[in-house]
Order: sequence, then structure tokens, then C-alpha cells
Amino acid sequence: MTNTINKVLVTFLPDEVAGEINVGETILTAARRAGVAIDAPCGRRGRCGKCRVRVLSGEISAPASEELSLLQPGELAAGERLACVATVLGALTVVVPESSRNMTRRKGTAALPYPITPEPWTRKICVAVPPADLAQRDFRADLTRLWTALNITEGESEYAAVTALPGALLAGDGTVTVVFAGERLLTVEAGETSAAHYGVALDIGTTTVAGYLVNLRTGAEMGTASLPNPQGIDGADVISRIEYTQRNGERVRKLQNSVIGAVNTILGTLAGEAEISVAEIYELTMVGNTCMHHLFFGIDPATLGHAPYAPVVTAPLTIRATTLGIHAHPQAQLRALPNIAGFVGADTVGVLGASQLATRSGLYCAVDIGTNAEVLIAKNGRVVACSTAAGPAFEGAKITHGMRAQAGAIDGVSITDELTIHTIDERAPLGICGSGIIDAIGELRRVGVIESSGRFTDHDELTDLPAALQARLREGGFALATAAKSGTGNEILLTQHDIREVQLVKSAIYSGILTMLEKLGHTPADLDGLYIAGAFGAYITREHAIGIGLIPNMPLEKLHFLGNAAGAGAKMALLSTHEYDKIITSAAEVGYVELAGDPAFSEHFMYSMELDVDCGE
Amino acid sequence: MTNTINKVLVTFLPDEVAGEINVGETILTAARRAGVAIDAPCGRRGRCGKCRVRVLSGEISAPASEELSLLQPGELAAGERLACVATVLGALTVVVPESSRNMTRRKGTAALPYPITPEPWTRKICVAVPPADLAQRDFRADLTRLWTALNITEGESEYAAVTALPGALLAGDGTVTVVFAGERLLTVEAGETSAAHYGVALDIGTTTVAGYLVNLRTGAEMGTASLPNPQGIDGADVISRIEYTQRNGERVRKLQNSVIGAVNTILGTLAGEAEISVAEIYELTMVGNTCMHHLFFGIDPATLGHAPYAPVVTAPLTIRATTLGIHAHPQAQLRALPNIAGFVGADTVGVLGASQLATRSGLYCAVDIGTNAEVLIAKNGRVVACSTAAGPAFEGAKITHGMRAQAGAIDGVSITDELTIHTIDERAPLGICGSGIIDAIGELRRVGVIESSGRFTDHDELTDLPAALQARLREGGFALATAAKSGTGNEILLTQHDIREVQLVKSAIYSGILTMLEKLGHTPADLDGLYIAGAFGAYITREHAIGIGLIPNMPLEKLHFLGNAAGAGAKMALLSTHEYDKIITSAAEVGYVELAGDPAFSEHFMYSMELDVDCGE
Repeated sequence: MTNTINKVLVTFLPDEVAGEINVGETILTAARRAGVAIDAPCGRRGRCGKCRVRVLSGEISAPASEELSLLQPGELAAGERLACVATVLGALTVVVPESSRNMTRRKGTAALPYPITPEPWTRKICVAVPPADLAQRDFRADLTRLWTALNITEGESEYAAVTALPGALLAGDGTVTVVFAGERLLTVEAGETSAAHYGVALDIGTTTVAGYLVNLRTGAEMGTASLPNPQGIDGADVISRIEYTQRNGERVRKLQNSVIGAVNTILGTLAGEAEISVAEIYELTMVGNTCMHHLFFGIDPATLGHAPYAPVVTAPLTIRATTLGIHAHPQAQLRALPNIAGFVGADTVGVLGASQLATRSGLYCAVDIGTNAEVLIAKNGRVVACSTAAGPAFEGAKITHGMRAQAGAIDGVSITDELTIHTIDERAPLGICGSGIIDAIGELRRVGVIESSGRFTDHDELTDLPAALQARLREGGFALATAAKSGTGNEILLTQHDIREVQLVKSAIYSGILTMLEKLGHTPADLDGLYIAGAFGAYITREHAIGIGLIPNMPLEKLHFLGNAAGAGAKMALLSTHEYDKIITSAAEVGYVELAGDPAFSEHFMYSMELDVDCGE
Repeated sequence: MTNTINKVLVTFLPDEVAGEINVGETILTAARRAGVAIDAPCGRRGRCGKCRVRVLSGEISAPASEELSLLQPGELAAGERLACVATVLGALTVVVPESSRNMTRRKGTAALPYPITPEPWTRKICVAVPPADLAQRDFRADLTRLWTALNITEGESEYAAVTALPGALLAGDGTVTVVFAGERLLTVEAGETSAAHYGVALDIGTTTVAGYLVNLRTGAEMGTASLPNPQGIDGADVISRIEYTQRNGERVRKLQNSVIGAVNTILGTLAGEAEISVAEIYELTMVGNTCMHHLFFGIDPATLGHAPYAPVVTAPLTIRATTLGIHAHPQAQLRALPNIAGFVGADTVGVLGASQLATRSGLYCAVDIGTNAEVLIAKNGRVVACSTAAGPAFEGAKITHGMRAQAGAIDGVSITDELTIHTIDERAPLGICGSGIIDAIGELRRVGVIESSGRFTDHDELTDLPAALQARLREGGFALATAAKSGTGNEILLTQHDIREVQLVKSAIYSGILTMLEKLGHTPADLDGLYIAGAFGAYITREHAIGIGLIPNMPLEKLHFLGNAAGAGAKMALLSTHEYDKIITSAAEVGYVELAGDPAFSEHFMYSMELDVDCGE
């Protein structure tokens, strides 16, 4: 009998791979074993419904309460289940729909703000070292003769450089290439190898881990690769991951290992595509929010989970990459940009660098919209920062048919007499991502389907609406794609709930900007420029961002989209140690403002829920 | 049949332990497996005959040519074999005589030259860190608040200190003990732990590895432990070990692992006897000759094997002890004193520190007699150094019945009407060690049994000799112990060959001193003091050291025996970072003189072979 067998196989289609698990474990666990990436942003809590799979055959548990509340009876009848909740009772065959998979996102641009001459922290120098010589009475050590040949006063040498030296001198017949990190001798290689000198800038996001491979000799960017942050399986957002770790060292290490695994996959991919070896990567820089930063380093993030949200460390960390288990040159150095506060992390410091806020005269604002939103305001180079509890609605979370910006996501909506949608990779629509949500709300507000309060207008007040749009009106929702046109076979709806979620997020961001400006004695009208950072920002429509009150009303020419500015900051720091120093210095001078419990913020937050909070001015 | 079985057991008596090996491997290999320490200073070459064992029963190879030449027919008949050569053909039972064992030597004294106030490089400070506080608007990082509580500008922190911090703050309820190495934060511990703060000074000798445990808070020495350097099995001297490594990274690592294993045994013993944990050892210093230094760090010593004998590194190395596999606190720091040249190593730098040569006004000489001999001459604080190719005769090597200064070694000889010997631990004599050899030669020269040239006087010229001494005269030798009185059952002889070996060594040392003084325009008569370093030195008779021409003739009050001054230097550097700095600075200013190929040295060497080279002046 199957229920006397402990181990069973779960086969996943269309992949045709199988994972072995114990009876009583979930389909999601089997998927992880089999290497099938199923999205589970709620951290296995059965709340988000993103991990739907269809059971074709086999023994499975009866639907749990979470499944009964998130799945329609017809869906359950068709075998649809939540992979994170449904437990396996016997051998099973399961179909994983594309909409439930973790897929590579659209690449976020991480463009440099200006051309940067490569002056990396690590340097490679080829030098010929004359041998010790009895006749010349030169009995000096190999290392001493090496420093003399370099014409540098003997400085600090890494242990590995010392042990590598005699072999390198022998194999290179006296000619070696030395690698420095700053003034410290990192390693010595036989012969002339200075052309092989690469670095990677890492952007460790809550949802996505991205790497940028740079030729440190020429400054050329050689490739980009990204993966979903695999920590997502244990919690979609920062707070869920902190809750998951529970001050348990093993769990902190598990999350660390999981993100380092993703980094290694990315390094392997980048190296493979560029036809180099990971051992030629000598230097990495890293940005991420404070929690991602702490987990990346294996630092317990528990204190980030409750007021006053103090981080363990804000200072910039430098570490040998292999200490973290990163596959690069054995002596490769990793430098993390510093954090500013518990919820203003190294990613925001990257934005600070890429937006050049600390060197601009005038009044500027930069907002980084990712899983959270951080706001920087700079007045003649003096910078203050805050974090707004924005939440990941623009990443698709908590949105009924929300999804990440992956193939099939509705990322653009426009309305004339009828509704036109655009999807990523022009695929049949599977759901809606951040820019699509903003477009949809903005357009529906424009044509009156949504009121200023965010409420759907009563249908009987919409009799003037073109018939094609009328046909899309639903009770408490609007159909962006019909069942016939959608890639899921079901309608893709924007619901009243979705609009409320977006209002919460956009109000948090808007109020954050307003409160910070107010503290400096300013209003949005005084701004000389507003920078929107975040891969998401690159795809939103400026008019709608203002239209729905996500950001203050301002001339469009003052509005700049930086793309992945956090990643750009990491690249700047990688390319040039001068840029790194500049960023570190300006980050150390940023003033942090805590908005939690700030009465001005609470007041702004209330009235900023209005969609056209700022459109009348 | 036994010869179809691959694995056989070799049982060792009186230990009653067994080692399993393959048929065809040696008894020595089986002994290593079983953990039985058998001496093999010639590096398994069948040359020194120190690894004699007696086979009681079992199948063994026929005597090899090395055994036929080193063992008497009677000995072979009694089952005596060389463990390094005899190969095992079947299960075997073997007796290991005490004279063939590696035993702990007499402890070398490593007395400090003056009292030193403990000011170690590593410091422990207990501090209460106020929590982050919403009401006080204190959102700063744990690490930032820690540095503030210490009242120190935030400096460099080890990664391990950062990861340890949140747990330590939680467990210590805000009170933590920080450990610094210099200005760098090494680690953080919960609560008040500053009383537990220990360090170990390591003296890595070619033949002996010694460790000195010091309480770094009080400066008290808590214990000493030593072991034979287990690298001895692959070569008794520096040159054999270099030949063994053959530029082969695996072999370098093997020798490194073997000495690190001995260090770990020593640390475990020291910690156990002092009832502390090795994890409370935060700091180590290390001295050793250049080759031992290189092998300790896993640095290929190949270039030390041939002219111009350039080392790989002379600069002081600092490394986390765990990087070398040393069992101490995970962040424990190890600092090696620098080397000066290929054959003037960190051990000589230790002697430089302990002899205070660099701070004396006047003309001074220090000689470190170990497996090799290094000479330092200082004129008003300016120091020059050289190495003499002395060889390990005083360690018992190449001496017919030579042995290390272990229990049963003859370490003192005096002659009146008859001969009196003293043995270590007052045991029945097993052989003769360095101080015994010098005494024996000195006394026999005094009574005319040996001529000034080192030759044994013809027996017919010795008719005036007391009968008790006459009875000890042998053809080409002199019996220091009769078969009846010896612990081996055989006579213990001083042979003509032994005297020649000692003459080579003493001439090298004497000529080194003379040549160096000459280069400074001086003769031995100008010396204000002569320091003899080396554990060996502590036991020799001053008169005989001068009498046989080991050192220049000088008033005995100018002659000082420092004991293990290399170890004392390591202890000084451990106890006080100021002493460390002073030693490093003076070592960097030492001028190195290469005696190889120096015509003056060659000339002195020739006539210094005479035993009473300097007695007539």
C-alpha cells in the first residue's frame, strides 16, 4: 500500500523531472528537491496563492482551509492546488503553470550616470623579478626582491601571496603578475596575466539577485544575469524572512547559503557567457537593503524586525569572497556599500551614488521603489533619508492577479474607445505587474471608472462609457483580459482590493517625500529634480505616476528615471575606487529620519490616499 | 597463506598497541599508524641506526644492506632490525627499546632577560552597550553603539566580530567583552570574559617544537610543553626536509600539517594542564629557523636548498591561527618574528631580542647553538649576523652512540682517577648527548687521551693513565659506559669519528665568530660579552666549551648562557607588543654576512679544527 511507503516520487510537467520526498511533505518541497522553481512569495503560508499547480494523478491530501478560501470550487475540481499547502500521500504527477514559476525578470538597466575611467581597487601589475645572486651578494628574500622590482616600499602581503610566490617565480621564469587590493599584495601569478582582470557588481534584492560583470581593465560591461532571490521560498518580504530566522543561527546560515548559491549561479553564468573563468574575478561590490545585506553576510537580522529597527552594522564591510562561499578568485575581495539605517540600506547608498545627490546644488529628491521605498532628499548636497513602509504591491504581491515583471505580465494599459494592453514578451497575459497596475489605475481614473477616492464608480453612472469598456465592468472589478484572451484561461481582473493596496503604497511614498521636504522647510514645488530609481521605474508612465499621486506633481522634465540605480552605484564603486570612496564618504554624512510615529507623516498619509491628491495644484 | 593477505597487524611492546599496514610496508610506518614514536632522524634512509627495534615473532623481510652494515651479526640474530628499512611480510610483534623512542626532552629554559609588563597586542575590554532606543531617537547600528560605548572612533572590525555581535548583546544583556588585535576589533563575547586571556609563544625547532603558555592579563607563565618535531621522520635536518619536499606542494603541505599537528598537541597539553580551553588562547607568537618558518606556513623552502639560499620571505607575517589549522580561539592571531636570511631565521631574531644585543654599548657576540649555529655580533647596537654550517652533532646526530638530551643520555663526564658520568634523570646510560660529548672530549683531552689534533693518543703512550681509565681504552675509541653498566646492554663508546664530527662543528662556530669580529676590525679579546643561546648551552661546562675551542678563550664572567633565547624572544614579543615592535625594528637593521665562499672564513676554519686552538693565548 502506498501509505506504508515512506518515500514517494513527485513528477513535474512539462519539465518531466521528479523529486523524492517523504509522505506528508508538500508539493513545494518536492519541487525544490527536483529543482523546479515555484514562486512562493508568502513563505509557505498559503496566503498569496502564487504557487498554484495542477495535480494530474496520484494521492494528495484533502484541500486545506487556505486552499478552500483561495481556490474556486471549479479550480479545485480541476485538480488545482497550492503547492505550499497540499501534502503528498503517494506518487504524484503535477503540472506547474508558467504563472507559478520563478522566472528571470526583465533586466533592470543599471546605467552609469556618467562615463567612469576604470581605476579599480584591485590592480594587476606585471613585473620581472631579478633572481637572488651569489655573485652580486644579493641574498634577499623573494618577496623583498619583488617589492624592490615594483619600486614600492615593502608593504603588507596576504599569506596566499607569500605561499604562491616561489612557484610563480619558477613557472614564470622570474616574471610574475601581482594583484593588489589597495596597497595590500593579494596574490602573485606566474607570467603576464594582467589582461584577465574582471569584477562583478552584485545587487541583492529581496526578490531579485542581479550581477553585472565588468572588465576592470577596460571598464567594459560584459554581461548581466539575474535570478529570483531563492530566500523567497522562506518569506517574500524582509519581515517574513526575519520572522523565519527567529534568532536561530542555523536558519540565518540557511538563508545566507541560499543567496550565496544564487550569486554563484550568476557568477557561473556571467563567466560562461563571457568565456572567462570565475577565478579571473578578483573583486566584487555588493548592494542590498539592510536585511538582505545582513543575511548575505550571515548576520542575524532579528533587530530589524522590531522598533527601533537598529541594524547590526552600517559601516562598509570588506571580506574575502571565499569566506562567504562565493566562487571567484580565491583571494577575490568583496566590498559592500554601507547601510544607513535598518530600512535604508546599501541599495539606497547605491542610489545616492548613481543619482549624485550629494554633489548637486539645489533641492533634489530620489526615490527607490522596490519591495520597499526609500526616499532621499538633498539640499545643496546635505542629504537626509527615510524609509516608507511601502510594501511589495508593485512587485505583484497582494494584487489579485499580480505578478512580477516576467513574460506574460501586463506592463502597459491604455484606454481609448476600448482597452489596449501590452505584455512582456508580447505573450498571452498571465497577470499584471507594477507598471501595468499604475497604468490601469491611471487610465481608469482618467475615464472615470475609478473615483478620486479609489472607489470603483457605480456602474449606473458609467452609461456613457464606450461599449467595449462597459463589457469589461465587473462587480467590484474591471477585466483587463477576458478568459478567452488570457494565457491562464481565466479573466485577469483589477479589483477594488488591488486599488486599495496601491493606494496604501503610493500614499506611503508620497507622504514620505512630503514630510521630508516639510522638515527642510520646502514643498514639492521647490524641487529642482526628482529621480525615480528601481527597475520598475523604467517602465512606468510618468503622467500616471503623477496622476495616481505616487509622486508629487511636477514638470515632466524634472522627473528622471534612473532604472536600477542601486546596481549602478555598485558598478560605480566596482569600476573606480575613487567613486567607492566618494560614495562611502557621502553615505556617512546622510542624516536618517525615522517616520514611524512621526505625526506629520501620519497626517500626510491620511489625505495622500486620494488618487489625485496633487493633480489640482 | 599470509602472503596473500594484504593488511597485517604489527603489535608493539611494551606498549601493547597495534598498527595495521599493507604487506611490504615498514615497521616504522606501522609504528606511526599505532602512534608509537620511533626516532628516525636520518629520514628513513637506513643511515643513522636510531630506529632499532627487536622482532619477537612474525614474518619479516631478510636484512637489507643498510641493516647488515649497521647491525652486528649477533644483534641480527637476536631479532634486532632497523624499523625504517625492515618490511613486514606478516603479522608481527616488535619490542621498541627506550633508546629508539622520541621522548620529551629536558625543558629548555626560556627565561626573560628582565621583567616585562604585560601589554599584549590582543586586548580584552568589557563594556556595557546601551540599546537602540526609539524614545531617544537612537537608531544607530549595534556596532556603532559599541564603538561609542568604548569611546573609540569606529575602526576596522573583523567579519566574525560583526556576526557575533547581535548574539553577544542578547546573551550578555547589553554587556559584552570585546577583543582587539591592535586597533582592529577581532571578536565580541557575551558578558564579562576579560579574565580569560591567554597566549602561547611557539619555538619551532628542527628537532623540537616547544610552546610556552602565558596569562596575558597577569604575565604569568602557566606552562611549557614540547615534542619532537614530527617532520623529523622525513628528514632530520633542514637540508633533508628541503630535499624531501622537492618543490612538491603536497609534500610541503604534508610537512606543514605534521608540525601543526605537533603544535596542536602542545596547545592541548598546555591548556589541559592549566585547566583552560584552547579557545581562550587569542594570540600566538612564533620563532623558528627560516626553513622551519617556511614549512610552518606551508611556504615552499626549495630556494633554501641551494646557493644563494634566498628565503621566500623575511618580513614578519601575521595570520589568523585557524588559517594554519591551529586549534585556538577562532580569531586567534599568530605573529611570526621576521627572518633575516636563508639560514638566519626568526629564531635568531628571538635571540637578538632576548640578548638585547641591539641596545648594548660595547662589543658583544651571541651564538645560538641548535641544529645549526647562528652568530650575531653587535658593536654599539649595530648588529651583523651570519650562519655557520655547524650541523646537528650536539643533538646526537652523526655521533656513534649519540642521542638527544633525553632520559638516559650521558650529559656530564668528569675524570679523576676514574671516570664518572652523569645521565639525565639518573637512568642507566643509553647514549650520549651534546653536553656529555663536550665534557668527554674536554676531559679526555685534559688527561691526554686525546691529542690537540683530535686524534686518540696511541695506547702505548698512555701507560701512566690510572688503571680504571686504561680499562676503558678501545681500538679507536673510549668506553664511557661498559656493557654491564649501560642501559642498552652494549658499551657506549666515544669514537674517533665522533671527535672528528665535533671538531667540524666547533670549528665552524669558532671560525664564524672570528671572521665576523675580524670584519669589524676586532679580535675575541675585545669582546665585552659572549652569549650562548640554545637549550644545549644551559648544560655545558664553560671550561670545556673553551677547552675544546668551541668558543674563544675569555674570562668566564663574560660568558653568559641564555638557555632557549629564541623561545624567550618569542615570549617577549607575546607579552608586550612594544617588545615585539622593538624586536621587529632591530631585526630589520641587522646586516647579513654570507660566509659561504668567504676566504677569511675558510682559512679560520682550517686551523680552528685544533681542539686547543685558543687555549695557549
